[in-house]
Amino acid sequence: MMKKLVLTGAGGRLGSYLREPLSKLAEELVSSDILEDIGTLYPGERYVKADLADASAIHALLEGADMVVHFGAIGDEAPFEDILGPNIIGAYNVWEAAYQKGVRRVVYASSIHAVGMHAKQDFIDTEVAHRPDTFYGLAKCFAEDLGKMYWDKRGLESVHLRILSCAQVTSARALGTWLSYDDLIQLVTRAIDTPTVGFSVIYGVSDNDRAPVDNSRASHLGYRPRDNAEQFALDILAAEPLADSTDSAQMCHGGAFAAVDLGQSGQAQMSIVDDKKKV
Amino acid sequence: MMKKLVLTGAGGRLGSYLREPLSKLAEELVSSDILEDIGTLYPGERYVKADLADASAIHALLEGADMVVHFGAIGDEAPFEDILGPNIIGAYNVWEAAYQKGVRRVVYASSIHAVGMHAKQDFIDTEVAHRPDTFYGLAKCFAEDLGKMYWDKRGLESVHLRILSCAQVTSARALGTWLSYDDLIQLVTRAIDTPTVGFSVIYGVSDNDRAPVDNSRASHLGYRPRDNAEQFALDILAAEPLADSTDSAQMCHGGAFAAVDLGQSGQAQMSIVDDKKKV
Amino acid sequence: MMKKLVLTGAGGRLGSYLREPLSKLAEELVSSDILEDIGTLYPGERYVKADLADASAIHALLEGADMVVHFGAIGDEAPFEDILGPNIIGAYNVWEAAYQKGVRRVVYASSIHAVGMHAKQDFIDTEVAHRPDTFYGLAKCFAEDLGKMYWDKRGLESVHLRILSCAQVTSARALGTWLSYDDLIQLVTRAIDTPTVGFSVIYGVSDNDRAPVDNSRASHLGYRPRDNAEQFALDILAAEPLADSTDSAQMCHGGAFAAVDLGQSGQAQMSIVDDKKKV
Amino acid sequence: MMKKLVLTGAGGRLGSYLREPLSKLAEELVSSDILEDIGTLYPGERYVKADLADASAIHALLEGADMVVHFGAIGDEAPFEDILGPNIIGAYNVWEAAYQKGVRRVVYASSIHAVGMHAKQDFIDTEVAHRPDTFYGLAKCFAEDLGKMYWDKRGLESVHLRILSCAQVTSARALGTWLSYDDLIQLVTRAIDTPTVGFSVIYGVSDNDRAPVDNSRASHLGYRPRDNAEQFALDILAAEPLADSTDSAQMCHGGAFAAVDLGQSGQAQMSIVDDKKKV
Amino acid sequence: MMKKLVLTGAGGRLGSYLREPLSKLAEELVSSDILEDIGTLYPGERYVKADLADASAIHALLEGADMVVHFGAIGDEAPFEDILGPNIIGAYNVWEAAYQKGVRRVVYASSIHAVGMHAKQDFIDTEVAHRPDTFYGLAKCFAEDLGKMYWDKRGLESVHLRILSCAQVTSARALGTWLSYDDLIQLVTRAIDTPTVGFSVIYGVSDNDRAPVDNSRASHLGYRPRDNAEQFALDILAAEPLADSTDSAQMCHGGAFAAVDLGQSGQAQMSIVDDKKKV
Amino acid sequence: MMKKLVLTGAGGRLGSYLREPLSKLAEELVSSDILEDIGTLYPGERYVKADLADASAIHALLEGADMVVHFGAIGDEAPFEDILGPNIIGAYNVWEAAYQKGVRRVVYASSIHAVGMHAKQDFIDTEVAHRPDTFYGLAKCFAEDLGKMYWDKRGLESVHLRILSCAQVTSARALGTWLSYDDLIQLVTRAIDTPTVGFSVIYGVSDNDRAPVDNSRASHLGYRPRDNAEQFALDILAAEPLADSTDSAQMCHGGAFAAVDLGQSGQAQMSIVDDKKKV
Repeated sequence: MMKKLVLTGAGGRLGSYLREPLSKLAEELVSSDILEDIGTLYPGERYVKADLADASAIHALLEGADMVVHFGAIGDEAPFEDILGPNIIGAYNVWEAAYQKGVRRVVYASSIHAVGMHAKQDFIDTEVAHRPDTFYGLAKCFAEDLGKMYWDKRGLESVHLRILSCAQVTSARALGTWLSYDDLIQLVTRAIDTPTVGFSVIYGVSDNDRAPVDNSRASHLGYRPRDNAEQFALDILAAEPLADSTDSAQMCHGGAFAAVDLGQSGQAQMSIVDDKKKV
Repeated sequence: MMKKLVLTGAGGRLGSYLREPLSKLAEELVSSDILEDIGTLYPGERYVKADLADASAIHALLEGADMVVHFGAIGDEAPFEDILGPNIIGAYNVWEAAYQKGVRRVVYASSIHAVGMHAKQDFIDTEVAHRPDTFYGLAKCFAEDLGKMYWDKRGLESVHLRILSCAQVTSARALGTWLSYDDLIQLVTRAIDTPTVGFSVIYGVSDNDRAPVDNSRASHLGYRPRDNAEQFALDILAAEPLADSTDSAQMCHGGAFAAVDLGQSGQAQMSIVDDKKKV
Repeated sequence: MMKKLVLTGAGGRLGSYLREPLSKLAEELVSSDILEDIGTLYPGERYVKADLADASAIHALLEGADMVVHFGAIGDEAPFEDILGPNIIGAYNVWEAAYQKGVRRVVYASSIHAVGMHAKQDFIDTEVAHRPDTFYGLAKCFAEDLGKMYWDKRGLESVHLRILSCAQVTSARALGTWLSYDDLIQLVTRAIDTPTVGFSVIYGVSDNDRAPVDNSRASHLGYRPRDNAEQFALDILAAEPLADSTDSAQMCHGGAFAAVDLGQSGQAQMSIVDDKKKV
Repeated sequence: MMKKLVLTGAGGRLGSYLREPLSKLAEELVSSDILEDIGTLYPGERYVKADLADASAIHALLEGADMVVHFGAIGDEAPFEDILGPNIIGAYNVWEAAYQKGVRRVVYASSIHAVGMHAKQDFIDTEVAHRPDTFYGLAKCFAEDLGKMYWDKRGLESVHLRILSCAQVTSARALGTWLSYDDLIQLVTRAIDTPTVGFSVIYGVSDNDRAPVDNSRASHLGYRPRDNAEQFALDILAAEPLADSTDSAQMCHGGAFAAVDLGQSGQAQMSIVDDKKKV
Repeated sequence: MMKKLVLTGAGGRLGSYLREPLSKLAEELVSSDILEDIGTLYPGERYVKADLADASAIHALLEGADMVVHFGAIGDEAPFEDILGPNIIGAYNVWEAAYQKGVRRVVYASSIHAVGMHAKQDFIDTEVAHRPDTFYGLAKCFAEDLGKMYWDKRGLESVHLRILSCAQVTSARALGTWLSYDDLIQLVTRAIDTPTVGFSVIYGVSDNDRAPVDNSRASHLGYRPRDNAEQFALDILAAEPLADSTDSAQMCHGGAFAAVDLGQSGQAQMSIVDDKKKV
Repeated sequence: MMKKLVLTGAGGRLGSYLREPLSKLAEELVSSDILEDIGTLYPGERYVKADLADASAIHALLEGADMVVHFGAIGDEAPFEDILGPNIIGAYNVWEAAYQKGVRRVVYASSIHAVGMHAKQDFIDTEVAHRPDTFYGLAKCFAEDLGKMYWDKRGLESVHLRILSCAQVTSARALGTWLSYDDLIQLVTRAIDTPTVGFSVIYGVSDNDRAPVDNSRASHLGYRPRDNAEQFALDILAAEPLADSTDSAQMCHGGAFAAVDLGQSGQAQMSIVDDKKKV
């Protein structure tokens, strides 16, 4: 059993779900976020407020840790200036601190939005080229390349979980992209308990009939989801109008994040999606 | 003929070589760097001092430009904190300004160090996965993903020139990696005069017998180098001792940048290569 | 719910099975064939006699339709002169009419015989090159290319169902190739209810242990078959003699259709398979 | 030396160029077309008027032939009804007659338009999937699949020459796509004199710096072009305005044939390109 | 039903498990090994002592056989001099005798150690390149190439079962590599009862959540395992310390066999693994 | 400059050509073969008689050597029993001795016959799967796998030169497969002077128009041949009858070695090609 496990983003939607199961995998779970507090702690859990963009805070946080589960970040599309601190500099701080403190592995919440501009009919396995659909996705690409470099040059392991959509199923797209909470927990657990992972990428998606991505190259992680969004299909499909096949938001893996904006020059128009539920 | 062409990094080693040929491709060449001045200007050339990390300066610089040749950046490995401003934020500023100002295309000085951790015996074409060897290379990966997103979502074209080593041939590695100045100029010219490029990646290397990369997927750009470093082979090979085949700096595309540092935990040890001549 | 759905080949073996389930997916199902009538109609079903080779009849048939399920064709190998009308000109008429009438999507009964000359030990996914085994299969290749062009140039969607063998299991080959009627219905339903499909190809085969093809690149369609021909294996294998491994009819995906005929010159010898039960 | 060689389309633009060199490769060259006559014949040449859609005429034409060079067809986009006879039924007639008459090999004028909807930045080798841009290109796809079937099942060899543009260089696109007449002759000669070819596909393009396709998988045919359209680049590029990167006619291999037409429903709008010079 | 089936290595650990089920697949099962006897025989079983390195003994053994299940060999790493006789010369003797005696098919116990030096994170399907981890694995590579040649040139079929680890689950590695005895029997049965196999390779592994290899290209054999080592995971993982990610024995498919030994020159140091339980 | 370079097979046809150029690359060239002597020695050359199958002789031969150029073997198809000693055991002896004696690299004469059963129209690069056409080719496959294992596990480098046909051009096949003596010397020199090679495979073929293999994945070795067999094409093709496209000896890379022999059971019929000039 690990002595110390660190969870960043512990106050976020997904982080909140992970606190209890992770608290059972180590003698001490150190949960962290930028909030003042995150409510009642689980046995063995300790909370530390820390800003991802603050290198010294992150170095202190990772002191003596065995692994870090890094879910902290702005969890939606935002202006690049806002993404830069927590998502880009924050990722650097986590990996550099992990390396300097002798942490064994980073388990990272990446996203389908790192490859969201690929068409749905295109084959998407875990080795497909980066094709971000937003600044949010671009920062995920950055962290994946960062993780690969720290593995190649410094032997620091990482698993990059490209989560599709870990939220209630409310659209036809989500019939394919749904990741149930139980499957999320299995996924993170496998990323931790697999003896060696090197640098690995895996899609976070349930066993949906309509799952549009392929995890066969990540089979060494032993993730085998059990839930299936098809149970919601009849209701969802009956309610939704036919999709527009000339709209990249319908045709690409990234969904609404993949909407094309050729815009007028002189206008910044990349759409900022409001739905805070999306990963 | 273009009305306005912008060159960033005009005061750098490679930028200096490009100023004259680029001045002939547009009515006005606007050269830019962070230096106070860059010496005598060519006919049609104008110099503007601008910091890449200063968004408003870059937006002003690109006003009315047809294309931008973006060679400005820290041109060597450096601490991440130093790379962040010019190489990462700077790239964002250039692409965002180009989009807002209606610039047609970005021609970008990428680098072999974006894929430098691939082994030399591995096949390296222009679609090989990112595998950066340094923070310097990591920033190149970032700009490639950025460019792909602006093409996919906003129709802004870019050509990413992964330059190998545009410098005098002084090592066995350079027998394969050499890019002559004449071939550099041809390469940049093709990136400009090809009618449509979408998002393209191409290696910047001469027609060396020992060139270790493959440009066949970039054939639409029509780059056909004419120089060959084999002319230097006898002298170079006679002077150099046998290489160490357990050393990643000898076995990987990135050369010295690819040296592995597994280090002691608690010590930052990624080597900062001193040779300022490398791209 | 769709207003009007058209089914061609409604009087054929597979078409007959589809009439009832399709009648539930639209306010009106217009079934069509070259027969005088097709017996008792289901609620909401209307029958229209139409020859696929008759352009004006097909244009009339598709007027106001949302989608067309195109199963009409000669369903077996035949002389090219016979295939030409219903299978080749007929396919053109359906796609052109669909385009002109604003039909959203064509769901097409393609066949394993479009790729039947691939060896069984070769990997066959949905992107494998065409390799027809008969004129029948050649016409399927034609319709797939036709569908791709109408998608690329005109935005008309299509799903090409490469059915293996939707018939009783009576041979060792069918232990792998069987498509049960229930799975056929699921397959066609998925091809209709998936919100966007662009141009998609998928194999029509049940969840047989010995299924020799790979649908992983069509996972976005969400087809998950439930039947398995292995239930018939013991009886079938006990009855069948050892196969001849020098016979292309045994070694290729196309089965009997893939029999090689090097013949004497001067003799037309491509075998016309009699079994009218094969798709 | 062959006894009898047949050339179809001998009265067409490309056929006319081939008559003399082909007349030297066989004791008798039988040239054929639908014209009344094709002018002065070369030594050893005989002219036979024959309609490709007339099976018995084609069977008579191929009696006793060693090989057939099949260049006859409508050489431009046209309504499907017009393409059907010479380009589709004609191809069937040539292959079936060749098989029945014991002809050894068909050398066929295919076209880049069989794969014209692929983007120029995509890698296009000779195994890339069909992606026709016109009915003209669709018929080329048909003939390629037909040729593969006759090879797989009946041992009739064929070489499919996907010609890019064998005409004067008058556009930026042609800087990449040009096939000089000398290189055309070399290409056809190699397709004839290579001892065994099975089923082969090769692009017909000169050694242009900007050639956008890859023939490495056809290296067994030994085609090594000598001409290079780059000699025309300065003049062409100076005269041509910047291309529109949102226009598929600029971005796809097929050029003007690849123009997208999403049109109003109810209107047949696939553009019929007028330029009769294109292959 | 076959008349005569031969099993080599019948006295070994895996061979012993196969005797009973194989005895039911033929009128006569001839079991063979180098032991004096192998205990009580099953109905229809006969025992013949034969040394694999003795050509005439093997030719006599295969006289009149329909198929041979070839499991005889040194089943662990050993000096090359010891491997040479039973594993290399023995394989030649079996294939050559099978060819000369008209035997239809060889079912061969190959091993993961034929590809054991591939990293676990690398994708390993049945077409991955050879990468042996021991002399033991090298002999498996030899037999696979041998089998391919006899198929290509002489039409002798073979199935190469790359068994991972058919033994009790006692390590974290085995959570992925376990092949249960029931699944072994199914695997061998499929290799026998599939009507035609040509030359096929398949991994012998159960349906483990953590199975690190991919059998999708061998789907024509219809092997569908039913056991899953995940039932042992909690206990195994609790007992095992964290693995060393710089150790090739932890990072490669071959496990302990893949340990790297760069050694001093002048010393033979390839480790000979003692565990006789491994395949 | 190397101190000691060893050449095996120095008395063979190719070895004889290599002696002089190799004698200039080291202070001492030790040439070896099973002959009593090999005639007049070049300056710096010493001759040692040694049988490849004699481990102690080979260990003595490699004492103190920097590299070994291993061309010794039976150079033609022969019964397996004859191939076993020099070609299989001999290869093991050379690699094991090289490892124990600290030799840096083995440069090995492999052959096209390691992959000779691939069809000529199939794409053959240096990563194509083994597909031997003879026992001779099978032994080459063995040595390639052996070399890969010594590199992976023990860091012993090797370059495997798959020579096509290094002999006078006397057939149509040789128009593609010819390796001139000058190009052979360049090839071996590059295999020696490239600073690091790891495990590399490269085809030995001149710059023939009709060269049927692809060396692009071996570009790091810098081999650029200068000769071209096309100079012999007119005479050769005029003299040779049309090839039989149903004969594997005509259709496969291995030429006459690839002739299929399905034979009668009970008869050993693999043809032993007499022409001793082939590699």
